[in-house]
Amino acid sequence: MKLLIQNAYIVTADEKNTVIPDGSLLAEDGVIVRVGEHFEAEADKMLDAGGMTLMPGLINAHTHIGMTLMRGAADDVELHHWLNDHIFPIEDRLDTEVVYASSLLGMCEMIAGGVTTFADMYFFSEGTIRAAQEIGMRADIGRCIVGDGEEGQKRIDETVELFRRYQSDRIHVRLAPHAIYSCPAETLKKCVSVSGKLGTGLHIHLDETKKEHEDCLREHGVTPTAYLHSLGCLSRQTLLAHGVWLTEEDADVIAETGAAAAHCPTSNLKLASGIAPVRMLREKGVTVALGSDGVASNNRQSLFRDMTLAALLQKGVCLDATALNARETIRMATADGARALGRDDIGVLAPGRKADMILVDQSGIHQQPINDRISNLVYATENTDVAVTIIDGRIVFEKGEYRTVDAERVLAQAETARDRIIGGA
Amino acid sequence: MKLLIQNAYIVTADEKNTVIPDGSLLAEDGVIVRVGEHFEAEADKMLDAGGMTLMPGLINAHTHIGMTLMRGAADDVELHHWLNDHIFPIEDRLDTEVVYASSLLGMCEMIAGGVTTFADMYFFSEGTIRAAQEIGMRADIGRCIVGDGEEGQKRIDETVELFRRYQSDRIHVRLAPHAIYSCPAETLKKCVSVSGKLGTGLHIHLDETKKEHEDCLREHGVTPTAYLHSLGCLSRQTLLAHGVWLTEEDADVIAETGAAAAHCPTSNLKLASGIAPVRMLREKGVTVALGSDGVASNNRQSLFRDMTLAALLQKGVCLDATALNARETIRMATADGARALGRDDIGVLAPGRKADMILVDQSGIHQQPINDRISNLVYATENTDVAVTIIDGRIVFEKGEYRTVDAERVLAQAETARDRIIGGA
Repeated sequence: MKLLIQNAYIVTADEKNTVIPDGSLLAEDGVIVRVGEHFEAEADKMLDAGGMTLMPGLINAHTHIGMTLMRGAADDVELHHWLNDHIFPIEDRLDTEVVYASSLLGMCEMIAGGVTTFADMYFFSEGTIRAAQEIGMRADIGRCIVGDGEEGQKRIDETVELFRRYQSDRIHVRLAPHAIYSCPAETLKKCVSVSGKLGTGLHIHLDETKKEHEDCLREHGVTPTAYLHSLGCLSRQTLLAHGVWLTEEDADVIAETGAAAAHCPTSNLKLASGIAPVRMLREKGVTVALGSDGVASNNRQSLFRDMTLAALLQKGVCLDATALNARETIRMATADGARALGRDDIGVLAPGRKADMILVDQSGIHQQPINDRISNLVYATENTDVAVTIIDGRIVFEKGEYRTVDAERVLAQAETARDRIIGGA
Repeated sequence: MKLLIQNAYIVTADEKNTVIPDGSLLAEDGVIVRVGEHFEAEADKMLDAGGMTLMPGLINAHTHIGMTLMRGAADDVELHHWLNDHIFPIEDRLDTEVVYASSLLGMCEMIAGGVTTFADMYFFSEGTIRAAQEIGMRADIGRCIVGDGEEGQKRIDETVELFRRYQSDRIHVRLAPHAIYSCPAETLKKCVSVSGKLGTGLHIHLDETKKEHEDCLREHGVTPTAYLHSLGCLSRQTLLAHGVWLTEEDADVIAETGAAAAHCPTSNLKLASGIAPVRMLREKGVTVALGSDGVASNNRQSLFRDMTLAALLQKGVCLDATALNARETIRMATADGARALGRDDIGVLAPGRKADMILVDQSGIHQQPINDRISNLVYATENTDVAVTIIDGRIVFEKGEYRTVDAERVLAQAETARDRIIGGA
């Protein structure tokens, strides 16, 4: 199956930030075989981009997509109260069916906003995997691991089972210990050992709050990063979510080990965790990807929004308008996201990479006049400007229509599931 | 002319944050005459909201709409460089026709995003006034005043002329001295005197950057606010844009005088000015409205975006998730905006107020499930969810269509004007 896209303004997101103003792209069986200035080629399907922008699909490097039903269910409340009085009681009522319905709803939102890959950490992950397979999204799945002894072991075993059953080109499974404060050293070390045996990675929340940072200093005498490093948890295959309170020394350690960070700017503000030192991390050589986190702390699954916020926020806190520019921000949401997920087959529009890509219509009045397309992508684009979303060479979303799932059914089953776990609005 | 809207979820934005889940609203000759639970009434036009949310039109309390053509023309650069090498050279080429074309483009974006009123400060204001009259927007216009002696006087005279010619129900004209560093004391005092005679207000940039704050301390021995107060510039009719570096003492002074602040979160981050202490200001009793600032530092004219950012940002910098909640944020963009502009005839859906209002379609997949409509308005709404925009009881935007202007012509004349002042993209 050959797909040819023509008349596109191609933003490759490669290391030189190459753009091709009148570009063509040819993909065969889901893999890009040629990208360049306008060319002709035989194909089974032709897509005239009509001047729209073609760029890599966005990579959401940290979310809990099974939480999507909790959108707006507990806003503007203090973290402890948020978790104990709102989130945990709702999560007690989850099961695989609910997580499936919730995940599928969140995935509809993601593909409509140009996200083609996401890294997830949550419960009842089979529900999320089933939804990803159905809608055709690329996913990095971590069954959330908490607790010690048998409890921790049980969840590790479940992860191994998920890996055996689902690890594939489109679905990656990794070990996902929740955090240093919810997993004892014994469980964390087991996760490292098992991930090594499976040849997969780790995904963990790290240094999200000041409390986590200070508690770790008090209990272990070192920062959360140093503690994690002492347990062997940091490697090129480790994905660290948040990193709000990382120090320069932490950044050096992370850069040396090759671990990556997933910056979640909206969530970190919404839960009053703070603002991650993204510029510092990047300057130290840390790969920094971009994540939405779950809707309960966002309340969207929109990488376009998170790109805008990430770029603005670094300028504001560094008091430097050059702290993070539009081109760097796009790479965070694409190429750097791919690297953070340990994948060299997505994130850039180049031959040999998967045909995960989106067409963005920049003709809306809110983007006019176009003085700089790349700036507009980061600072002026609406999610609704995403016209076409393609994963593995297959169109999954086009002009407001879902091609792989029935949106009516998704909404109906989400409503039913919501009523079960949350009740009257 | 009577307009009846039925089957609406009405968010009144009154002091009690009253909502009416199945509400009706009746307006006569552009003024709201009745709001309440479902009722029937005779009307010339009926609008079935079909469950959509009806709320006051948003009030953009600080912008430079004549800059809209500069969207993305100078992003990610340092402030001094931004002004001197990018913005000022472009502004040298402005004239009334260019500002008209630029303003009309920006107003199209605003009404499509639910903004019905804006406070402007810029040059060639007749172009902006003409555009506002054409599209039917409510505007508070300030011809930007800079310089001393004859130069300052000339601009004040021009403002008086604008006032005489255009002051009306829909167009307000006020004195707009640019800032304390661009207007000597003599000019500022003249502005106070003239505004007093006309019975209109002042609109001025204040304490936007650390440099402005520190320079003022060095030159005048007091903060910018205290300096402005010493010149008699602060009153119930004064609108202070930015206020990023205000101290608690400044806030006390502002609250006592009844002046209002326009918080511009996106712009303050983008230009690396910092983050205004909105919670502190509100706690001190200062009216805080919301502004987009010009596109060159935003890059949108979207109050929905600025609401999201304002609410998130205060949580993040205060490290308190309750710092600014969704309901307070909506009032900033509506009722508090009206008060900041010295108007008690807009900003709330209540009898006697102007029928400036919007219908927001919250049925999109990105808003599901709806656990809290108000939260969704602040944290999950896209500009494209705005289905209908009504000003003075007249529909100016409906389902993606502009009712008072021809969008094709707006775009064409914007493109021509852009080519003249900016050149090849």
